Parts: sequence; structure tokens; C-alpha cells
Amino acid sequence: MRVDKVAVLGAASTAYGIWPGRSARDLAIEAVDGALRDAGVGPRDIETAYFGYAITGLIDGQESGVGQLALKDLGITRIPITRVENACSSASSAFREAWLAIQAGACDVAVAFGAEKMTGGSTLDALDALAGASDLEWEGGQGLTFPGVFAMIAQRHMLEYGTTREQIAQVAVKNHANAALNPKAQYRNPITVEEVLASRPVADPLRLLDCCPISDGAAAVVLASRRAAARFGLDHVWLVASEQSSGSYASEGPITRFDATEHAAAKAFEAAGVAPLDLDLVEVHDCFTIAEIIHTEDLGLCPKGEGGKFVEAGQTLLTGPVPVNVSGGLKARGHPVGATGLGQVVEIVDQLKGRAGARQLPAPKVGLAHCMGAFFHGDCGTVTIQILER
Amino acid sequence: MRVDKVAVLGAASTAYGIWPGRSARDLAIEAVDGALRDAGVGPRDIETAYFGYAITGLIDGQESGVGQLALKDLGITRIPITRVENACSSASSAFREAWLAIQAGACDVAVAFGAEKMTGGSTLDALDALAGASDLEWEGGQGLTFPGVFAMIAQRHMLEYGTTREQIAQVAVKNHANAALNPKAQYRNPITVEEVLASRPVADPLRLLDCCPISDGAAAVVLASRRAAARFGLDHVWLVASEQSSGSYASEGPITRFDATEHAAAKAFEAAGVAPLDLDLVEVHDCFTIAEIIHTEDLGLCPKGEGGKFVEAGQTLLTGPVPVNVSGGLKARGHPVGATGLGQVVEIVDQLKGRAGARQLPAPKVGLAHCMGAFFHGDCGTVTIQILER
Repeated sequence: MRVDKVAVLGAASTAYGIWPGRSARDLAIEAVDGALRDAGVGPRDIETAYFGYAITGLIDGQESGVGQLALKDLGITRIPITRVENACSSASSAFREAWLAIQAGACDVAVAFGAEKMTGGSTLDALDALAGASDLEWEGGQGLTFPGVFAMIAQRHMLEYGTTREQIAQVAVKNHANAALNPKAQYRNPITVEEVLASRPVADPLRLLDCCPISDGAAAVVLASRRAAARFGLDHVWLVASEQSSGSYASEGPITRFDATEHAAAKAFEAAGVAPLDLDLVEVHDCFTIAEIIHTEDLGLCPKGEGGKFVEAGQTLLTGPVPVNVSGGLKARGHPVGATGLGQVVEIVDQLKGRAGARQLPAPKVGLAHCMGAFFHGDCGTVTIQILER
Repeated sequence: MRVDKVAVLGAASTAYGIWPGRSARDLAIEAVDGALRDAGVGPRDIETAYFGYAITGLIDGQESGVGQLALKDLGITRIPITRVENACSSASSAFREAWLAIQAGACDVAVAFGAEKMTGGSTLDALDALAGASDLEWEGGQGLTFPGVFAMIAQRHMLEYGTTREQIAQVAVKNHANAALNPKAQYRNPITVEEVLASRPVADPLRLLDCCPISDGAAAVVLASRRAAARFGLDHVWLVASEQSSGSYASEGPITRFDATEHAAAKAFEAAGVAPLDLDLVEVHDCFTIAEIIHTEDLGLCPKGEGGKFVEAGQTLLTGPVPVNVSGGLKARGHPVGATGLGQVVEIVDQLKGRAGARQLPAPKVGLAHCMGAFFHGDCGTVTIQILER
């Protein structure tokens, strides 16, 4: 497609954690307000909005209109406002829809935001709600939940490639170390490989510290066409590619490769004119530790099967050549599902702008966010890839 | 914006009704398969998909991935697939996102589809689920449900404009008469004004026959860029405007006018170069009879306050100068909420193609679909306006 780069004018998130007494709407308002202030734009500058929101409706009953209600309180009305739900990639798909609306010429300034309130609901437990992102008719009927799916994937990766239990644990250790430097992260406690291996078993070989937490939080980004961006200063981060795919669900295919990542990444790298090893930082969807290892392979950061060795060798550390999940990732920054994809973008924007504080990388120029939503029949429901440049 | 008209290559829906044993996925598969066959395109021609789906997740637990799972069964994989949820305008917003993706140049051929399975769920009743499209914190806390909202609107319209109870009932009578000619409609029984007035009270002055039903169903439309449309023949219906807005929620404003309809319609008429009285048929969101009266006013089909007289005078009959809801509307065709907006588009395509059977209008050239989703604080969460031409 004919791609025009789009400016990120502002980006903000709430802190991630468990916030009793705050609603998804309340969290969304904080994030959007922060992004508007960061962008230096007012409510009347926003021409279109997309809202990522996944499972809070199942948990508290407010399925529709949370985006409209949040924006109304900020004085943003009389514009198209659309909720996007693609499970854990809801916010990253919302971000992409805002980008498409600008590419289409339907608006010059848009906000994409996402929110999730996974705790304290009255209707359904968060884990039961999350099961609605697998195929309840098929996988649900067999009692298969996401920890079980990723445990099977881990077993197979260990068998095929000799990946070790300790290598998998290194992902959690690294991500907690990064989160310790992130004031907005949910888990800021450093952990060791020994602690991961001694934590409570969840689905063999995965243990509690291999799993991302249940989180409340919101994130928002203000985007503008290149033409409009000039009105708001000259120094912007640019979204240079935004691609999305779903799996091929080839039942005979390996479960240690997510081909939706491969399609979406190939298209994004081509659109951006960037190669995997050009990336200065990468945020990936580490819902479980093994997932991060597979994503580093599928993105071409290391050869297939070598993701375990790659993390063990420190290649993905904050100080390594390809820092992965410098925010702390889903694992330790937190995973409010409908906000996560934009939380990744907020981290990349903060890093590219040199305002990431104690975890700031030295002058990064290009970052990639990888987000994955839902998983059925051995492949991803959705993968999004965003490439941002300074 | 720079608008390029987009071709509708194919359109299809299921029959509307209560279908025990069929899932939203199953209904979606039938509709998409029908639209592909009507378009003469194969699964591999589809480059992008948008799926409207509103409250079935609350009713049966399958919140995510229904779109991906339905398309997978039809062999449509490895493309962007995004669920859109804007309450009762979910499908019309999905249709607009497909149009935007084509306008953006991100794809040439897209499918928009919507499905809802409102009956037979195990988790939540459809009426409780629908309440999640009002503001549960505010209206929900006061026990205000949609029949109550529209009853207040009807009372006010009667007080301000002298609209009569009989005029309001005429909407239901007309829509049932139209549905009697539609083999896919849920209620094909003609009714009289007397029967409407004698039906069970719901919220004064509205009675049972003033309210749309609970329905299962799905609808789908295949869209193509002008460039790509030439590959699929020369005789197409064209989408010439697709606009969306939300309300201004002006608390002091009149509740007998939905200003989101006015904004969205003004933009759509301008984009299409069409005036209200150029329209050969109009499908509007008649969730309650009074809503249709207000929409005919807000769309400029008649002066403000005269919607009651307009329907009473037969202006909106199948044989009148401005036929409204020739499909039977939400009231009698049925209202599977996540599919409704595309159901309207299917009707307009069938009419413009001259294949609407017993309810066929004489050579219509221009049709408009108006869809409304969610209602809070005295105004619409979303209104979409689509204008299609032969």
C-alpha cells in the first residue's frame, strides 16, 4: 500500500496494577488526558477515536460505550468513536485503525486508547473471562486454558530445540529486572532463575513466575497526519508501519512457530524499509515466558530454535544488542489486556524520546511492538506489528 | 476527505429469528458464504475483514475470536481480522472500517460481517446484556432501561409536537406490512393500529408492539476498491458515503432530537452530493416505533416535529414517496444487534439490484442506511450513515 508516515504527538499510560475502586472508564480518562497533555492538543483537536477494550464487559457488565463515556468526560464528542476488540491485541488493533483512518484521509488527528479493569468485577472472574479468547466450543470443551496451551508449546520447544527450563526462566528474570526500573510497572521486584523454578507449578513445565499477571490499567496515544503534525512542533516519533495478520491454523503445522507473526512482520519490515537487526528495542507479547522466546525467533531476531540460547546469552537484556521488553513486558509491567498493545507503544515512544528514566537506552532510533490476541487451534487469532522511528 | 466510491460486490444475510442450536459463528459462516457467492469471489480474494458483534459474549461467554473462527472455516486466514463493537451499530461501524481500509489503500477487497446470537445463552439474559449499552454507573443505577428511555422520549415528543399515540403505532403497522413481503423477516404477520394499542404495556406510552424483538442472525457484505471492482464485472452498487458520529450529550438539549444523526447525515449528504429528498429508500434504526419518527425528522425527510404526521400520511409506505424500512426494519425484520447495520445494507443492495421480490421498489437509485448504537445521558453513543447508489 501507499504508506505515509504518521506522527505520534503524545503518549501516556496509567500505572499498572490492581486498583480497587477505579473503573475502566476512570483509567481510560487518565490515560487519554495524559496523552492529550503530552501532545499539546485539546479535546477539540481530536477528530476520530478508537478504543481497545477486551474482557471488562464480561467482568462488570459494561460491554458498550466505555470509550464514548470516557471521552465525553474529557469534552471529546461529535466524532466517530469505535471500540475494537481483538482479545489481547485489542489496543494494538485500535492503534492500527487510527492509523488507517489517517491514511484514508478521514481525519488528521486521532486518539487510540485502551483500558481494562480485570479485578473486582461482579459478574465473572478474570480467568473465566480470558477463556473467552480461546475457542470455547473446541478447546474449552476439552478443558484447555491458556497456561495449558503454552505449557504444551514449551514442552515441544524443549523437545525440538533442546531449550532448557533455565533458559525459559531467564525471560522472567530479565523482565522483572527491567520492570524494577519502571515506576509504572506492576511487579518491580527483581527475581532469580531459582525463584522462578521454585514457584508454584501452573501447567508443567510452566510455573507461576512464567505467567503474566492480572492487571488494571490504560494507555493512550495521539496520532496525526504528516501534514497536521507540523502544526504541533517538529520533533515527533513516527509510525512507519502498522501491519496485522491472523494465523493459518494449519493443523499439521508446528506449534513452536506462530506464523501470523511471520506474515505481519514481513509486511511491516518491508513497509518500513527496516530489517530485524536494525531494531534498537522490541516489545513482544510475553503472556508466558516461552512466548517471548518464540516471538524473538519468529521476528527474525535470532534463528528458529535458538530463542532460549539468545536470552541466556544476554542478547535481549537492557544492555544487550537487541533489548526486548525493556518496559518489563506483560510479565512484570503488567497485562491489562485491552490496553497492552498501546502500553507497548507508550514504552517505545518514551524510549525514542529519551524520557524513559532509569531504563533509558542510549539514543534508540527504531522500535517494534508485537502484540498477539487470542489463540485457537494452534495459531494466533491476531498479531499486530508496529514499527516506530525517531 | 478525498472520497473514492467503493463497490459492493456481494451481500447476503441469514433469515432472522430465534434459531435454537445455531451459534453466532455458525450464522456468520452462512452470511459470509452467501456474500462471497453473491460477489463471485473466493476466500483467497478477501484481504481484510471486519466483524460486528455486540453482546453474544455476555450471553454465551465467547467474547473473542468469533470472526476469526468463522472465517477460518471458510478458508479465509492470514489476513487482518478485527472485531468492532459499537453496541447496535457494531456491524455498520465494521462496514465503515472496511471502507476506510480500502480508502487507505491497505486492501482492495474486504468483507464486513456481523452476527448475534441473542437467545439460548448460558450466562446472561439478552435484556441484561443489552443494559450494558447504557451507562450502568449512571442510568443503570437509576433502573433506567432502553424501553424507559424511549418512553420518555415518546412522551416528550407527544407533548412538544402533538404527536399522537396512533401515529406512533403506524410505524409498527407499516414495518410489519413490509416484513410480510420479506421471506427473511422474523415477524411476517400484518398488524393493525388497534392491535398495537391493545398490546401489553412496556413503558408508558410504549407497548409490546412498539418494541423491536430479540433476534438471532447474521449479515455480510463484500466490498472492493473501484480499481479492483472492474475484475468482478461492471454492474455494481456503490458505497458513496460512510460517516459516523457520537452525540454531544448536551444535558440541556432536547431529548426529541439525536444530534449525532444530524452531524453524521450532514457529512454523508455532502460527501455523496445527495439531498434527503433524493433518497429512494431509507433504512433507519427503529429499535422503538418513536425512534423511527425522530430519525425521519433528524435525517431531514420531514420537518422537525412532523414525523408523526409524516408516517400517518403514508409518506414512508412502500408505495409512498420516501419508503422507510422496506425490509421490515428492526421492528419486524428483526434486530440481532451485532448484525443489524449490515442487514440494512443488504436490503438496500437487494433493492438497488432489483432483486427484492414482492417488496421491490420501482427502479430505486439511491438508498441510505441509518444505524444507532448505545444511548447515554440523552444522546447516541454512535450513529452511522451509509449512502449507496446504483
